[in-house]
Amino acid sequence: MSNMTPLSELGEFGLIKLIKDKITLQQNSTIKGIGDDAAVLEPTEKQLVVSSDMLLEGVHFDLTFCPLKHLGYKAVAVNVSDIAAMNAKPTQITVNIALGAKFTVEAVEELYEGIRLACENYKVDLVGGDTTSSRTGLVISVTAIGEVAKGEAVLRSGAKENDLICVTGDLGAAYLGLQILEREKQAFLADPDMQPELEDKQYIVGRQLRPEARMDVVYDLKERGIKPTAMIDVSDGLASELFHICAQSGVGATIYKDNLPIDEQALEAAMEFNLDPITCILNGGEDYELLFTVPLADYDKVKNHPDITIIGKITNKSEGINLANKHGQSFPLQAQGWKHF
Amino acid sequence: MSNMTPLSELGEFGLIKLIKDKITLQQNSTIKGIGDDAAVLEPTEKQLVVSSDMLLEGVHFDLTFCPLKHLGYKAVAVNVSDIAAMNAKPTQITVNIALGAKFTVEAVEELYEGIRLACENYKVDLVGGDTTSSRTGLVISVTAIGEVAKGEAVLRSGAKENDLICVTGDLGAAYLGLQILEREKQAFLADPDMQPELEDKQYIVGRQLRPEARMDVVYDLKERGIKPTAMIDVSDGLASELFHICAQSGVGATIYKDNLPIDEQALEAAMEFNLDPITCILNGGEDYELLFTVPLADYDKVKNHPDITIIGKITNKSEGINLANKHGQSFPLQAQGWKHF
Repeated sequence: MSNMTPLSELGEFGLIKLIKDKITLQQNSTIKGIGDDAAVLEPTEKQLVVSSDMLLEGVHFDLTFCPLKHLGYKAVAVNVSDIAAMNAKPTQITVNIALGAKFTVEAVEELYEGIRLACENYKVDLVGGDTTSSRTGLVISVTAIGEVAKGEAVLRSGAKENDLICVTGDLGAAYLGLQILEREKQAFLADPDMQPELEDKQYIVGRQLRPEARMDVVYDLKERGIKPTAMIDVSDGLASELFHICAQSGVGATIYKDNLPIDEQALEAAMEFNLDPITCILNGGEDYELLFTVPLADYDKVKNHPDITIIGKITNKSEGINLANKHGQSFPLQAQGWKHF
Repeated sequence: MSNMTPLSELGEFGLIKLIKDKITLQQNSTIKGIGDDAAVLEPTEKQLVVSSDMLLEGVHFDLTFCPLKHLGYKAVAVNVSDIAAMNAKPTQITVNIALGAKFTVEAVEELYEGIRLACENYKVDLVGGDTTSSRTGLVISVTAIGEVAKGEAVLRSGAKENDLICVTGDLGAAYLGLQILEREKQAFLADPDMQPELEDKQYIVGRQLRPEARMDVVYDLKERGIKPTAMIDVSDGLASELFHICAQSGVGATIYKDNLPIDEQALEAAMEFNLDPITCILNGGEDYELLFTVPLADYDKVKNHPDITIIGKITNKSEGINLANKHGQSFPLQAQGWKHF
């Protein structure tokens, strides 16, 4: 730590300058970014979408195993994921951070390097925010703004009976990656000379530390002429998200257990921890995949998509929300979600 | 506390419902508020302004003397103040909160009652946000969105030589109110039976606990046909804000010490604490008044305005930033601002 620079040497305005100087604006709609009381954005004919999420040290991340660069990336990605779930395109973000006294300039640079990378990947402009001190841990609060053509926004409330329920990518990996990281942390605390065993866990650990928003799928669906009837991103867990769609759409749903997508590494990790893989898929959360419904007529368009799995169908509300096995038996699904409180 | 409801009884979704149910939307541009992955806003022909600020317990407020309702109000007001400082009209906000385990449902209701009140006063819609738990104190992060006709946004960078420097209301009171509150807290800690002595301090204590954004002045200036050349809100202190305007406008400034507006109660409190009132005005901060510059030609329009004081003039950059006394002597101004780190 001897070469590290304390934040106090830089001061708040120095810190803002440091952040600002590395930003390249990409959106035509950004008229004025960081450096005034507020950012100024040019109006377009499109509707705006706005979403905001906060990550706190000790609640949402653990700096003993979460590299700051990944954390910065993740803070942006989880907000872009909400924009994706509206079928919209992200355009700008603001980032508020509160930093503990032990934070160095180099650490802040790492964090913003991750934020910058995510901005580059998702083509969003960092246009403002607030930097302050924290008496305790790191807090990152991000607000994402996006745009969507009128009539193209996809809400949670549009699912119709007989719609297909689809999910992107695979599920449960982020949760299992976290279990691995927690185990290695305990092992490290017990014996600081140990080397973490992560070689064959790269995928699931990466899913936890550096998730991606599925903007690729949003753009791809548009190209294929598919407009979901309802959509939500999987942050709290598949079951919880499905409950949101069903409640807001006034429908029921049946999910086919055997169709639920899980990665090989996640499956192996579930075995290792003696966890039911289906429970990890349903309630694991933090995968930031998209859960969406499409009309049955779109079946041919989605069935062979490499990144989309059809996992069930929307039913009448009276049928409730069920998990069906291959023998045709159905059991009511329990939504756990995350109990923050 | 026996009648209080722990948050765990309500859960996150119950909490979101509780917040959502009390909201009345006022802006035509709000298409979809709380309840989906993102809010949806209707486009207008106006430019958008976006600003974001975060308040942390133990850094920005002390719950031992800050009522939650006031705190909720303040969290909105300080963000609306940034929108005001752009010469814009606030339209929507998102609010992220992190709550400690000891927080009750009733406490959250108090906090949101203040947020709701501010939304009503400033005519902004609460359209989204995030509720999560905190291992430590309360964190509130607000993002405000506003609109301004093209060409009407006022940046910090437009001040010109010979412009008049104006400030709304009075300064230093919020800082002195905080000194009073801190003193009464110490007295209370030493003797819990003591009664706080706040009768003749209502104004300055109120300035600290429940500041207002000066939207009234923004609307009033527009009515009088005055468009400031540069504007900023006084959050860090007059001197610090003046330095921002001068740096970004490439100008110097002279402030007349005798013109600086201070309230009688603030002056008395400064005496009590043996503090220089001018220092409190220049570096106190948190007054959320507007500091702005207007062309000399607008002198007649601003000189008799009951809420505006002309405190100085913009000079050539080479002259620096100075404080002048009635004897015509000038001294370079020091900007302290707040050292967060």
